[in-house]
Amino acid sequence: MPSVRTPDPNPGWLSEFQLEETRARVPILYVEAVPIRVDALGQVEHVGLLLRGSAQTGGITRTLVSGRVLHGESIRGALIRNLEKDLGPTAFPQVPPSITPFTVAEYFPVPGVTPMYDARQHAVALAYIVPVTGECDPRQDALELTWLTPEDAAMPGILNELEGGRGHLLKQALAHLCVLP
Amino acid sequence: MPSVRTPDPNPGWLSEFQLEETRARVPILYVEAVPIRVDALGQVEHVGLLLRGSAQTGGITRTLVSGRVLHGESIRGALIRNLEKDLGPTAFPQVPPSITPFTVAEYFPVPGVTPMYDARQHAVALAYIVPVTGECDPRQDALELTWLTPEDAAMPGILNELEGGRGHLLKQALAHLCVLP
Amino acid sequence: MPSVRTPDPNPGWLSEFQLEETRARVPILYVEAVPIRVDALGQVEHVGLLLRGSAQTGGITRTLVSGRVLHGESIRGALIRNLEKDLGPTAFPQVPPSITPFTVAEYFPVPGVTPMYDARQHAVALAYIVPVTGECDPRQDALELTWLTPEDAAMPGILNELEGGRGHLLKQALAHLCVLP
Amino acid sequence: MPSVRTPDPNPGWLSEFQLEETRARVPILYVEAVPIRVDALGQVEHVGLLLRGSAQTGGITRTLVSGRVLHGESIRGALIRNLEKDLGPTAFPQVPPSITPFTVAEYFPVPGVTPMYDARQHAVALAYIVPVTGECDPRQDALELTWLTPEDAAMPGILNELEGGRGHLLKQALAHLCVLP
Repeated sequence: MPSVRTPDPNPGWLSEFQLEETRARVPILYVEAVPIRVDALGQVEHVGLLLRGSAQTGGITRTLVSGRVLHGESIRGALIRNLEKDLGPTAFPQVPPSITPFTVAEYFPVPGVTPMYDARQHAVALAYIVPVTGECDPRQDALELTWLTPEDAAMPGILNELEGGRGHLLKQALAHLCVLP
Repeated sequence: MPSVRTPDPNPGWLSEFQLEETRARVPILYVEAVPIRVDALGQVEHVGLLLRGSAQTGGITRTLVSGRVLHGESIRGALIRNLEKDLGPTAFPQVPPSITPFTVAEYFPVPGVTPMYDARQHAVALAYIVPVTGECDPRQDALELTWLTPEDAAMPGILNELEGGRGHLLKQALAHLCVLP
Repeated sequence: MPSVRTPDPNPGWLSEFQLEETRARVPILYVEAVPIRVDALGQVEHVGLLLRGSAQTGGITRTLVSGRVLHGESIRGALIRNLEKDLGPTAFPQVPPSITPFTVAEYFPVPGVTPMYDARQHAVALAYIVPVTGECDPRQDALELTWLTPEDAAMPGILNELEGGRGHLLKQALAHLCVLP
Repeated sequence: MPSVRTPDPNPGWLSEFQLEETRARVPILYVEAVPIRVDALGQVEHVGLLLRGSAQTGGITRTLVSGRVLHGESIRGALIRNLEKDLGPTAFPQVPPSITPFTVAEYFPVPGVTPMYDARQHAVALAYIVPVTGECDPRQDALELTWLTPEDAAMPGILNELEGGRGHLLKQALAHLCVLP
């Protein structure tokens, strides 16, 4: 009996082959978010970093909230979906009212073009700073979420643990928030 | 019995004479805020406009949240103080994590230099867009807070009711939020 | 005898088939630029709009400087390449020192999701305002470049002539420059 | 015999006494600029730092282009006037088309409130990044202009020589330009 294919409810998801092929053709659009906790005045108190296993090194590395913008998906929708993917459903992120990013991160497949790189692809990420007010509960692929003060987050030891050169992006976020030591 | 003057706990407040004198000497620094209500995706649904009595015309005019930055006061502190002054203590504003304004508004005492003007002074306002999540209860000098959709807020009739040319500033906020019709 | 493959000098260019296929899979990254002429104070005096033939309507429409970011190409490189493509080699554009765009424009293949749309694809454009100081000489696919004052550029008749809803993007640029009437 | 008051040709300039008095009453509005030299792609190659005598320490310190916004003066006008004051008449600065600053710097008269401070006053500075294309020839109160690569400018030894904590502001500028090492 033939299987019936219903229309794909989410055409944004691609097979591994399609994704590989596409990555060789065009820059892939990402959103990235630096989760923060703020005090009563709205000033950053802690920065959230994800600890997770790296497919490239087999070791443990730190990263930021990050994910692709799917075909047909709005930037705002992609940002919220990826925040929920990485921080869980009760993080209650305050997505900024404007989608203008605080910076744009360029990842090339060859190291050295920019301070960031991504062996898999040429990626361009719109980067946002997102206060979260609820409980964060990363799903299984992210092992842990750590909250660090800006001073601790900016220590070279931490910055170097961020994969793909994202320590650079984290420093940009801290500078934008006027708390880069 | 002599009155006892304790040290001024808030040296930012000036006498009327001192304020007049200062206004003739330097541009006066303000913060302004466009209060918004957002949906689950963080997208603006309504814009809050204050209806209040105008000292200049004796009539009723619309305005935005606005106030001076006092001597010794941080921008963030001034923003929160003026949000509470104009929206009440239970508005729960989400002050942006960065103090970089989305625009800077220049008010000159002579009309026509910029689209905005202020008969009292040369003022420079750092302008912010601030989502509020609680109940707004303007204090007595502000008669009422009205929530309008971006479409309604951008109607010429409304924009022209904003005092000092702030209809221009409101349009800039709506454009920044990608909802200017 | 084995065929010899030399390295592709420009892997960013895709065949029509590859481009169609890719457009159905991921959002395509663009840069867009609003060319301006400024006075001695750096304030905008004129906005440049391109008049060109529209493949969709067969008529003449207005547009902005616009083009894809190619695989392996930096945003800055894409911006300069597309400025030269649309304004000619002697426009001498002053590309902004930061690649943070003043806004991000989302074009969906279905009208109505955002004010902008693109029947061919889901596109996301990083938008910049670029002063040009030299002579603009659009190449053949762009028929003409017209310089308009902000007042003239913001007239509904002009805004509606911009293809894909870019009148919305132009208004955002004028608002960002504090010259939206 | 009646005294004749001619209109003050430049009401922005205040006597020392008036300035002292005003500084005790309100935050004083400044503009600051980080001069840069860019390559053909518009990317920063060098950052300009001023070497000058410090009234506070009697030693030689580094600083950025900086000055008050005078009463009645536009932000754009203040920026250009101070660029000319500190870089000379042939620097040909490319003042940004939008007056939205890349950050706002707060200087308090007491150290420690923010990373920046100013013993003379509470100052709030709108900060800009300004490419210059001509020859810089600082006037006498600025002893020298030095052009440094972003890598050299970000060295702790240099950052600490910037007066009033402006090393912090310089790092923010480099981060905004994506060149903070």
